Amino acid sequence: MSSPELEALIQALAHLPGLGPRSARRVVLHLLRKRETRLVPLLKALERVNGALAACPTCGNIDTRTPCSICADPRRDARSLCVVEDVSDLWALERAHLFPGRYHVLGGRLSALDGVGPDDLNIAALVSRIAAGGVDEVVLAMNATLEGQTTAHYIAEQIEHFPVRLTQLAHGLPVGGELDYLDDGTLAQALRARRPIG
Amino acid sequence: MSSPELEALIQALAHLPGLGPRSARRVVLHLLRKRETRLVPLLKALERVNGALAACPTCGNIDTRTPCSICADPRRDARSLCVVEDVSDLWALERAHLFPGRYHVLGGRLSALDGVGPDDLNIAALVSRIAAGGVDEVVLAMNATLEGQTTAHYIAEQIEHFPVRLTQLAHGLPVGGELDYLDDGTLAQALRARRPIG
Repeated sequence: MSSPELEALIQALAHLPGLGPRSARRVVLHLLRKRETRLVPLLKALERVNGALAACPTCGNIDTRTPCSICADPRRDARSLCVVEDVSDLWALERAHLFPGRYHVLGGRLSALDGVGPDDLNIAALVSRIAAGGVDEVVLAMNATLEGQTTAHYIAEQIEHFPVRLTQLAHGLPVGGELDYLDDGTLAQALRARRPIG
Repeated sequence: MSSPELEALIQALAHLPGLGPRSARRVVLHLLRKRETRLVPLLKALERVNGALAACPTCGNIDTRTPCSICADPRRDARSLCVVEDVSDLWALERAHLFPGRYHVLGGRLSALDGVGPDDLNIAALVSRIAAGGVDEVVLAMNATLEGQTTAHYIAEQIEHFPVRLTQLAHGLPVGGELDYLDDGTLAQALRARRPIG
């Protein structure tokens, strides 16, 4: 149909999440037609990101700065540390502007099925970071999945002997959640963790 | 939230068709995590396309070859010319492997509303191409829209004095179309263009 160069570009785009061969073709057509305003800016943005991309040696966040924008920001509270599974979780929390402290990105979750053990995650660095002192609170912000919670338990064990306040995200009804539509697991968590009113 | 480089990449992706800020962020996260297998191939494919991209001087197709892959293919029948509005229409016909001839891409459609006149389209080149001889049939494959059909009529007028067979795509029921669900315009076309059976 088209030249190998265009086919290669369609292929590369079709593998991105949310895109398939059909939408990749639409994107390529759009890029062809708007070379100066779409293709060239995208190419330059990719080049710049690719040239600077690195994992932050402190927290494991992936950023174009070393140390990452968050670790380098003096306004972020270094005494409060939020441990997340992945960079996407960090982004989700940052989007909501909720957490004023710094992060520690594990780079995954413990999973016997996928063969991911403690040594495959960024856990040793977390322990030395806490051992080095200066941290008052560690928030375990793992996903509310079996593997996420297993990971949280494991990390809690590793750091419970340090003099830090160890917390985890609350589990319960999501905002707007209707009891009738919730799964039993969430309902059970919400009931178990019920709180006094007022 | 993240560095300006990442924000610029999210912006560039968010402007592509089918993507928005949310899906662009997902794509960027995916690229960050799979730098070698996703980001680098995408970057290289874009570079190669951007470096070679050009409109074919003969037919107006946008390709990484000059002349384009179709004009350069000796197996394509040069006596049969299919006129389309846009490269996307050419791609649609090529995907279906339907047309063995060559193309002529107008680069748009006549539109008084959008201020697109005959001089804004690749029409003069079409007329000289036909005037140069060697073309037996011209298929007008405009979209079945008001503007597409206006464009087809205009082109037909421009080339009717040449000794070529002038045809246009049939209008009627789409395959699988049910009368009950079709619009009146399509029904009217199908009835008007009814054909003897057998």
